[in-house]
Amino acid sequence: MRLPSNELPPLSGATPLASASGACQCFLDVRAATERLAAPLSAEDCGAQSMLEASPIKWHLAHTTWFFETFILERFEPQFAPFDPAFRVLFNSYYQGVGRQHPRGQRGLLTRPDLGTVQAWRANVQERMVRLLQHPASAANAELASLLELGLQHEQQHQELIVTDVKHLLWCNPTWPTYQEASAQLDEPAAAPPVLRWQRFDAGLAQIGHDGMGFAFDNELPRHQVWLDAYELATRPVTNAEYQAFIAAGGYDDPAWWLAEGWDWRSSQQITHPLYWRETAQGWCEFTLAGGRPLAPEQPVVHLSYFEADAYARWAGARLPTEAEWEAAAQGCAQDLAAGRFAASAVLHPLPAPTQHSGGCALVQMFGDVWEWTSSSYAPYPGFAPAPGAVGEYNGKFMVNQYVLRGGSCATPAGHVRASYRNFFPTTARWQFSGLRLARSVQP
Amino acid sequence: MRLPSNELPPLSGATPLASASGACQCFLDVRAATERLAAPLSAEDCGAQSMLEASPIKWHLAHTTWFFETFILERFEPQFAPFDPAFRVLFNSYYQGVGRQHPRGQRGLLTRPDLGTVQAWRANVQERMVRLLQHPASAANAELASLLELGLQHEQQHQELIVTDVKHLLWCNPTWPTYQEASAQLDEPAAAPPVLRWQRFDAGLAQIGHDGMGFAFDNELPRHQVWLDAYELATRPVTNAEYQAFIAAGGYDDPAWWLAEGWDWRSSQQITHPLYWRETAQGWCEFTLAGGRPLAPEQPVVHLSYFEADAYARWAGARLPTEAEWEAAAQGCAQDLAAGRFAASAVLHPLPAPTQHSGGCALVQMFGDVWEWTSSSYAPYPGFAPAPGAVGEYNGKFMVNQYVLRGGSCATPAGHVRASYRNFFPTTARWQFSGLRLARSVQP
Amino acid sequence: MRLPSNELPPLSGATPLASASGACQCFLDVRAATERLAAPLSAEDCGAQSMLEASPIKWHLAHTTWFFETFILERFEPQFAPFDPAFRVLFNSYYQGVGRQHPRGQRGLLTRPDLGTVQAWRANVQERMVRLLQHPASAANAELASLLELGLQHEQQHQELIVTDVKHLLWCNPTWPTYQEASAQLDEPAAAPPVLRWQRFDAGLAQIGHDGMGFAFDNELPRHQVWLDAYELATRPVTNAEYQAFIAAGGYDDPAWWLAEGWDWRSSQQITHPLYWRETAQGWCEFTLAGGRPLAPEQPVVHLSYFEADAYARWAGARLPTEAEWEAAAQGCAQDLAAGRFAASAVLHPLPAPTQHSGGCALVQMFGDVWEWTSSSYAPYPGFAPAPGAVGEYNGKFMVNQYVLRGGSCATPAGHVRASYRNFFPTTARWQFSGLRLARSVQP
Amino acid sequence: MRLPSNELPPLSGATPLASASGACQCFLDVRAATERLAAPLSAEDCGAQSMLEASPIKWHLAHTTWFFETFILERFEPQFAPFDPAFRVLFNSYYQGVGRQHPRGQRGLLTRPDLGTVQAWRANVQERMVRLLQHPASAANAELASLLELGLQHEQQHQELIVTDVKHLLWCNPTWPTYQEASAQLDEPAAAPPVLRWQRFDAGLAQIGHDGMGFAFDNELPRHQVWLDAYELATRPVTNAEYQAFIAAGGYDDPAWWLAEGWDWRSSQQITHPLYWRETAQGWCEFTLAGGRPLAPEQPVVHLSYFEADAYARWAGARLPTEAEWEAAAQGCAQDLAAGRFAASAVLHPLPAPTQHSGGCALVQMFGDVWEWTSSSYAPYPGFAPAPGAVGEYNGKFMVNQYVLRGGSCATPAGHVRASYRNFFPTTARWQFSGLRLARSVQP
Repeated sequence: MRLPSNELPPLSGATPLASASGACQCFLDVRAATERLAAPLSAEDCGAQSMLEASPIKWHLAHTTWFFETFILERFEPQFAPFDPAFRVLFNSYYQGVGRQHPRGQRGLLTRPDLGTVQAWRANVQERMVRLLQHPASAANAELASLLELGLQHEQQHQELIVTDVKHLLWCNPTWPTYQEASAQLDEPAAAPPVLRWQRFDAGLAQIGHDGMGFAFDNELPRHQVWLDAYELATRPVTNAEYQAFIAAGGYDDPAWWLAEGWDWRSSQQITHPLYWRETAQGWCEFTLAGGRPLAPEQPVVHLSYFEADAYARWAGARLPTEAEWEAAAQGCAQDLAAGRFAASAVLHPLPAPTQHSGGCALVQMFGDVWEWTSSSYAPYPGFAPAPGAVGEYNGKFMVNQYVLRGGSCATPAGHVRASYRNFFPTTARWQFSGLRLARSVQP
Repeated sequence: MRLPSNELPPLSGATPLASASGACQCFLDVRAATERLAAPLSAEDCGAQSMLEASPIKWHLAHTTWFFETFILERFEPQFAPFDPAFRVLFNSYYQGVGRQHPRGQRGLLTRPDLGTVQAWRANVQERMVRLLQHPASAANAELASLLELGLQHEQQHQELIVTDVKHLLWCNPTWPTYQEASAQLDEPAAAPPVLRWQRFDAGLAQIGHDGMGFAFDNELPRHQVWLDAYELATRPVTNAEYQAFIAAGGYDDPAWWLAEGWDWRSSQQITHPLYWRETAQGWCEFTLAGGRPLAPEQPVVHLSYFEADAYARWAGARLPTEAEWEAAAQGCAQDLAAGRFAASAVLHPLPAPTQHSGGCALVQMFGDVWEWTSSSYAPYPGFAPAPGAVGEYNGKFMVNQYVLRGGSCATPAGHVRASYRNFFPTTARWQFSGLRLARSVQP
Repeated sequence: MRLPSNELPPLSGATPLASASGACQCFLDVRAATERLAAPLSAEDCGAQSMLEASPIKWHLAHTTWFFETFILERFEPQFAPFDPAFRVLFNSYYQGVGRQHPRGQRGLLTRPDLGTVQAWRANVQERMVRLLQHPASAANAELASLLELGLQHEQQHQELIVTDVKHLLWCNPTWPTYQEASAQLDEPAAAPPVLRWQRFDAGLAQIGHDGMGFAFDNELPRHQVWLDAYELATRPVTNAEYQAFIAAGGYDDPAWWLAEGWDWRSSQQITHPLYWRETAQGWCEFTLAGGRPLAPEQPVVHLSYFEADAYARWAGARLPTEAEWEAAAQGCAQDLAAGRFAASAVLHPLPAPTQHSGGCALVQMFGDVWEWTSSSYAPYPGFAPAPGAVGEYNGKFMVNQYVLRGGSCATPAGHVRASYRNFFPTTARWQFSGLRLARSVQP
Repeated sequence: MRLPSNELPPLSGATPLASASGACQCFLDVRAATERLAAPLSAEDCGAQSMLEASPIKWHLAHTTWFFETFILERFEPQFAPFDPAFRVLFNSYYQGVGRQHPRGQRGLLTRPDLGTVQAWRANVQERMVRLLQHPASAANAELASLLELGLQHEQQHQELIVTDVKHLLWCNPTWPTYQEASAQLDEPAAAPPVLRWQRFDAGLAQIGHDGMGFAFDNELPRHQVWLDAYELATRPVTNAEYQAFIAAGGYDDPAWWLAEGWDWRSSQQITHPLYWRETAQGWCEFTLAGGRPLAPEQPVVHLSYFEADAYARWAGARLPTEAEWEAAAQGCAQDLAAGRFAASAVLHPLPAPTQHSGGCALVQMFGDVWEWTSSSYAPYPGFAPAPGAVGEYNGKFMVNQYVLRGGSCATPAGHVRASYRNFFPTTARWQFSGLRLARSVQP
C-alpha cells in the first residue's frame, strides 16, 4: 500500500469471468469482510482522521465503493447513473486521470455524506455490481473480470488500512479506548521464542517477481532475474526483548547506528522508542487494538520506522535484507504462507514465533505477524509498464523515496499476500505493523 | 469570546440566589437552548473540528458541562464524584489552574466519549445542579450564585461558537451542505438600506465600562472615565454592496489601504474577498447556514478580518471607531438593543438595516446582526483585576494582540450582550459574524 | 522603530533651511556618526543578516543613503541621475509607493554591491546633497528642509539598529566575538542601585503627544488630552538582581504570571531567561558588545520581550505603565533627558541607576540605558494623519499588533528621543535594549 | 557529493607514500586549485550562504583545511596543537565521531574568523602537512598515505561545490552579477548537436564497482556482478531545445508525466522550468557564471531535479537508466573520459555534444558537461563496509532517500571522476550541474 493515497492495482493474467455466481460470491465476501471490520465502530469513530497519512474509516468504506462505481459501473453498466455525482470528487484518492480530488488532509471534515448514506451507497453499488456480473454479456468480458479482481484486491488493501488507521486514531485519545476485546491468544502464556539462527543462501541468479499464476499487482511484474551474492537471513523476526536491549544500550542516543537523515528525524521528533510504546513505573506497555497492555518480550517488535529498523540492524552487527534476498528466500516457504497469522485470526497483533516449523523451511514468520522492512527503495522492475488510463496510476507514480516491506502482517487479509508482494512506505512511517528480520552478507 | 479557547467570565455584583426555582429554570433554559442548537446535527457533524480555532460541537456540549462540574459541583456538591474523571483533562479548555488540557488541535480526534455519553453527562450534571440549587444551604450562598451566573453566561458564549464553528465546518465540505432551511426573512424582498449618514458626538469625558446593574464579565470593569475628542459614527454598518465597490475598485490589490501586516497576510493567504464568498458566472454568492445563496447587496457585510475592515475604512476615507467611541454612542441606543436581531430569531444571518428607527437613537443595528470591529486593542481597563483562582483565567490572560468587537451578532443569544460588552479576536479571524461601522474624527 | 523595515518619519514644523552651512554640517555630522559605528567592522561583518528582523550593516549604510537619493535628490536635484538604478529596488525597505523591494529575508545575500561600492555611494550622495543644500534655490524650500530633517532622524534610527543588529549577529557566533573593548565604566565597581520607591501621580486630564517645538515623527501627533486615573511609577527600572529573583522563584515555569500567548511562546521557544544570558558553573553571564561578561546585578535588566516584562510585572504585584502614564510622568523629567546615557557614551550597555538625582524629578533613568515596555498597543493618536505619498508609509501602516516602548536606550543617539517619542515592536522582540519600569494603579 | 554536508571518502588500495616530494606536490596542487576558484571572489562573496544546502565559500576553504588538521595532523603530527581549537566545532560538517558541529544553516553567520584568518589557517596547515609528509617516518605510513589521498579527493569534491554554491548565491542577487567573463567557447557559433540515436547493450552479467586500480571512494566498493536485461542508451544527453519542446507541450502542467511526489513538489513550489531559466520578451535566457545569457538550444539541459529529469524521460517515451546500466556502458568509453569537458577548461558551463566521436565509443558526453541522473536510489553495494572511526561517516550514512548521478560535470575537477564514481542528491536538488541521458528497455 502506498501513502499518498492508499490505492491499488492493475491486473496480470485476466481471464473472462469463469462463473458469474462464483464472482458474485467472491465480491460479496470481500465487501462483507470490510463491513465486519467497521462494525465495532460508531459513526463518530468512522468519521475522524488522525493524521494526513491515515484516512477516516468512512472514507475507506466510500473510496472502495467509488473504485467499483468509477472503474467498472461507469464503463460497463448500461444506463450508468452515479449514486451521487459529488462522490466522484469527494472519494477520489489520487487518480488524476479521473479528475479532481478532495484534499487528502481534509477527509475528516466530510461529515456529509454521513455513515448511513455511505452504507446505502455500498449496498446500491453491490446490487448494481451483482446485476452486472450476472448479465450474460459479462461472461466473456475479460476486462471486466480483470477490473473486478483488481477492485477486490484494492478493497483488501483498504481492509488492512482500516485496522491500522483506527489503531492510530484510538491511540490519539489519551484514554486509550479499545476497538475489540483482547483475543485469548494474546493472553496465553508464551513460550520463549526460538533462538535466532542464520540461514544461508548461496550466490547465484534468482528469479523474482510474480510468476503469472493467479493475481498480481503490476509492481510485481515482470518476473526477471537478479544476481545475488551469498547471504544469510535470521530464522525469525526481531523480538520486543531484543529491541528493548537496543534501547537499554542507548541505541536511540548514539548517532553511530543511524542514517544521517534518521538521526535528524529522531532528534527533531524526539523519538525514543517504537510508536505505541509507553514507559510506566511497571515497565514498558504498549497500545493495542484491545487497549494498553504490558509489553510482551517474546512478540516480534512492531511499529518501527525504516530508520529504527535500519539502526537496530546496524547495532546488531547485521543489516536489512534486500527485497530480492527476501523474495528468493521466501519462495521456499510455501507452508509458512499457509501457516501465517493474518487478519482472519482476529488477533490483530503479532504473536511470538512458533517454536517448531510446520515444513521444510528453516525460516519462520516470513508471512503474517509483521511486515518486514527491506533495504530496497521501491522502484520499477526492469521492463515495468503501468496499465494505460487512470487505473494505471495506482502503483508506478509512487516509485520514489519509499522502501519496500515484505510478507504481510496480522492485519493483512489472508490470501492477499504472496512471496512476490511488494508493500512500500516512506522511511518515517510507523503506524503500519512494520518490524524487521536481520540479514548479513557472507564473505566469499 | 477569545480564541485560545473560547471561555468565560467572572462576576460583577453576585447576590445570593434569589429563588431556587427561578435559578433552576434559568439554568435549564440556557442548557436547553444549547441542545436545540445541536439538534439538527448528527453525531458525525458534532465530532469534527475544522480548524485549530474552532471546536467540535460535541466538545462545546461537553466543555460547558465541565464548567459546571469543575467550578460548582466539585466545590459545593456534598460527596462530589465526577461523572468520569478523565473528562477533567479532556474538556478543560485552557484553565492552567485546573491542571492539564487535551491539546486544542486534537479535539476532533476524541471519538470517545461519544455524543450519547456527552449527552448523558449533560443530563447527569443538570440533575445534580438542580439538586444543589434546591438545597436549603444554597440559598444564602453568594459565591454559588455568582458562579452559576458565570456558568450560564459562559454557556451562552459557547452557543454563539456552536453556530460559527458549525458554519465553518459545513463550508469546508465542497458540497456546501445546510444546517437549516433558509428563514423566510432571508427570502423577503429587501428595501434599499437607509442612506449612510454621520452622527456627531461632541468631545468630553465619557464613562465607559459596566455600571454594575446586572451581570458583567470582569473585562468590562471597572467603570471609568475616558476623554473623547469629537467624532462621528456612521448611522449603520457597511453593506455588501458598499464592500463590493471596494473590491471592484481594486481594494484588495492596492497596498495603500492596508496595514503592512494585513498586506502580508492578504498576500500569503491570497485573500481576495470576505470568507464564505465565491464568485460565479452569475455573480457573487455566499455560504450561509442555509447553504449557498446569491449575495444580497443590502445586507451588512460580514466575516471580515480586522485587516479587511480597516482597509475598507481607509479606502472609504474613514476609520474604525475606538471601543470607547462605540460604547459612548451605544449608551444612547437602548431601544436598539431591544430591537436587535439575535440568535433567537433563528435567521442566523445578518439582515438589512431597518429603514426607520424604533426610537430616538440616530444609529441603527448597533446591536445584533454583525459584530463591529473597533480599532482598540483588547487591554485591561484601569484598575482591572481578575478573580482569584482558576476561574480568573478566562479573560485577563488574553489581553494582548487581539482587537475588540462590539454589539453582538445574529448568532449571539438575545439578552447576552450590552453596551459595555467586549468581544475580542485576533486580526486575522474571519469565521465570526464580524463586520464594521465607519467612524471619523471631527476637526476641532 | 518598526520591525517590518525599520524606517522613519514625517515632519512637524518644517521651516525653510535656516542656514545652508548649518544644515550641511548637521547632515555631515549624522552621516559621519553612522560610519563611525560601522568602522570596527569588516566587510564580512557588514554583510551578514542574522535573522529576518535584523539587517546587514551594509544594508543600513545603503538604505539610509537610498532615503536621501530617493526622497530628496530624485525630487530636487537638477538633472537627477541615480548612482545605480538597481539600488532603488535593492535598498527600498518597505515603501510600496516607491515600487518593488528586495525580499527582506534575503538582504544578507547581496554580496554585490560590495561594501566599498556602498561607501562610494554614500560619498557620492553626500556630495550631491551638499551641493543641493548650498544651492540658492534651496534656502526657501520648506519641503526640502522638512525631508532633510526626516532623513537625518531616519538615519539616527538606523544607527541604533546597527548596534542592535551587530550585537545579535556576533552573539550567533559561538565564539562570542567582540565589537569593541569594554568601556571603563562597565568595569567600575558599582554601588547598589537606589531602593525602588513608588512615585504617585494624581488623576486628571493630561496632555500627551508632541508639543510642536522642534522635530517629531508623525506618530507623536497630534497632541491631545487623555484622562488618567491616579497611578504610581517605580523610581527606577527593574534590575538584573530583581529579575534573577523572578527566575529563581520559578517565574518562567508558572503560567499564572504569563499572558496565554506569552506562555505558548515561552513553551514553544523554550525560553528560560532573557536573550543573551547564559548560565555557567560560575553563575549567569551575558553577551555584550564587548563579549561575554558576568551578569552585573545592579544593572537594569535588558533584552526582554513584552511577554517577559509583563510576566515579571505581574509576579512583582505590579503592571506595565500605559504610554500615556509614562509620558505624563516623563514631562517632568527634563533633567533626566539631559543626563541620560545614550550611544554617545560609547558604553553601549545599560549602567546602574544613579544613586542621586540630578534634578527635581523623583524618577531616574527615564531616558537612556533601556527602552521601557509599556502596556499600550501601538495605535494612531486621535486625528492622526500620515503624510501624503510614499514618505507617509513609514509609521502609520505599522500600527497593529505592536507595543510601545519609551525613553530610549544606551544605543540611541543622544538628542534623538524625547518624552513624546514612541518606539514599537512586536511582543516577542528581544534584540533591542528593552527593559521595564513597574507601575501600579492607586485605588481611589 | 551528498547534501547533509558535502563531505568525502575512505580509501581503496592505500599504499605507502611513494615519494614525499610527489605527494607534497600533489597536495599543493590541489590546494592551489581550490584557492584559484575563490580568487575572483571578495570576502563578502565568500561569506554568504544562499540556502541550507549550499555553504559559504569561506566555509569550504576552512572545512577542507579542517579535514587535514583533524584527520591527519591531529593523529600524526608530533606535538599537535590546533591553529584554533574553536575551529574543530565551527568547521566540522557532519562527523559525529569528531564531536559537535556548528548548525548547518548558520554557516553564513560566521563572520569571524574572517577570510584572511581562514587563508592563514590554510597556509599554516599546508606548511605543517608538508613538514609531516617530508618526515622520514611518513614514508612507510600506509594509513597516512591513504588519508592524504582521501583528503585531496575530498577537497576536489568541495571545489565542485564552490562552483555550484557561488552560482546559486550570485543568482539570488536580482542584478545577476558575474563570477567570471564568459569563455570564448561559450560564444562560438554552435553546430547542431548530433542526432539522438540509441545504442543497444545486450543482456548479461556485468561487473560494476571500482576495480581497485587507483583511488576510489568506499561507496564504489566492492566490485560485484549484477544481471542486466537488454537495454538502450541515448548517444548523447538531452538538449535545451529538446527540453523546451517538453515545456512547450505543457509538460509541467500534465500530471501524467510526473511521479506523485514530484507533482506535489512542482505544484507547491510553482516550478515551471529548470532552475536558472527565465522567460523574457526575447525568449528564454539563463543565468550562468558569466551572468545572464540567451538559452543555447544545442547545449545539454542542466540544473534539473530528479523529478524533472524523470518526467521528461517519461514524456519522451523513455526512462532514466539505472546506475548499473550507465556504468556498464561507460566502461567502454575510456576515450570519452579523457575528452570530457571538466572544470579545468574554465568554461564552467556545459557545451554542445561534439559532432564526431574521438574513439570507438558510440556514446558521447558520458563524462563531463552534466551529471546524469539515474533511476537508482543511493544504496550500499553488496558487502559494503564503511571505514572504522569518524572518517567512515562520510558516505554510508547518507544512503537513503537520495538518487545516484553519474559522469561528472563542467564543474568537476579533471581526473576526479571515473566510470564507477557515484554522486548522489535528493530528488529536489537542482543547483548542481544535473542533466539526463535517456534509456529504454529492449523487449526480449
